[in-house]
Amino acid sequence: MNFVHIVALLAVAQYFAFGVLVGQARGRYGVKAPAVTGNENFERAFRVQMNTLEQLAAFLPSLLIAAVYWSGALVAAIGAVYLAGRFVYRQAYVSNPTGRQLGFLLTVAPTSVLMAMGLVGASIRA
Amino acid sequence: MNFVHIVALLAVAQYFAFGVLVGQARGRYGVKAPAVTGNENFERAFRVQMNTLEQLAAFLPSLLIAAVYWSGALVAAIGAVYLAGRFVYRQAYVSNPTGRQLGFLLTVAPTSVLMAMGLVGASIRA
Amino acid sequence: MNFVHIVALLAVAQYFAFGVLVGQARGRYGVKAPAVTGNENFERAFRVQMNTLEQLAAFLPSLLIAAVYWSGALVAAIGAVYLAGRFVYRQAYVSNPTGRQLGFLLTVAPTSVLMAMGLVGASIRA
Repeated sequence: MNFVHIVALLAVAQYFAFGVLVGQARGRYGVKAPAVTGNENFERAFRVQMNTLEQLAAFLPSLLIAAVYWSGALVAAIGAVYLAGRFVYRQAYVSNPTGRQLGFLLTVAPTSVLMAMGLVGASIRA
Repeated sequence: MNFVHIVALLAVAQYFAFGVLVGQARGRYGVKAPAVTGNENFERAFRVQMNTLEQLAAFLPSLLIAAVYWSGALVAAIGAVYLAGRFVYRQAYVSNPTGRQLGFLLTVAPTSVLMAMGLVGASIRA
Repeated sequence: MNFVHIVALLAVAQYFAFGVLVGQARGRYGVKAPAVTGNENFERAFRVQMNTLEQLAAFLPSLLIAAVYWSGALVAAIGAVYLAGRFVYRQAYVSNPTGRQLGFLLTVAPTSVLMAMGLVGASIRA
């Protein structure tokens, strides 16, 4: 479970870091709160953070519940793919939003696998 | 706890499915990333997903903490109301946003009950 | 762990309450769903709720994982700073978005501390 907790907290830290980049983009591109539109570069940074929040909300419960039923090392390894996928996603999105599919897939796929593992594990023991 | 985990993961899967529908709506209504406005039908699908994220963030911790202090079967049954409520919410919102109150209530009410159960359970044992 | 659960659920309840205020602001300022822009006061209430969701997604896992490795009373006390910070944040944002830094810091700092505590705790025992 410890490795799973490390992956979970690294995913939170990564998401937090993306949020810091949104704050910096607000200053750099002059988008004043509460506005979240008006500059394409700001919007890209903002959408990366929002999409990461959207993914994190599915990833964390799937990761932590899968770890109840399966080997922590296996679950943590699948979770590490998500972490890498998010970095790929951010790089692609910021340079060109239409090229974000690979990074997106690399986060949706591990989450889907963990979700299925959790459902199977919980169903078998129910 | 196993039934509670199944309900938790089904809520995550439901939310994930709503996200897929947003992706499809992007293509169908020609709303290019990072834009999230510009077409009413896309905005409805997007707001359903965002509202489900907003609800999920309250539902999952309430569900999982309530299950620490109360019967898993009872907690899972209350959680199942949330799942049904979200489907009702989506159907209503997509056809007409002003008719979304019932589905909204059917997700806010079970979450509020689980939140109260968790607070009472944790307070009694504190 | 019980005090930690109480803080976790109070954070969820606080976030829920901010959501109710957004619903009221929709009515008061005449912003019809699915729109989320068009009135500055509505946008402030909406951004407070969204920012609280963004913070909650980092706070809750950090809080609950830190509590696995450290004293529940200590973790709950740090979590209480987050709760207070969010109220400060909301008050400041609604009256003037440029004055939201203190409240923001009071929520980012406890979350960062809990995240670091969880990472250290899980790494030592790994």
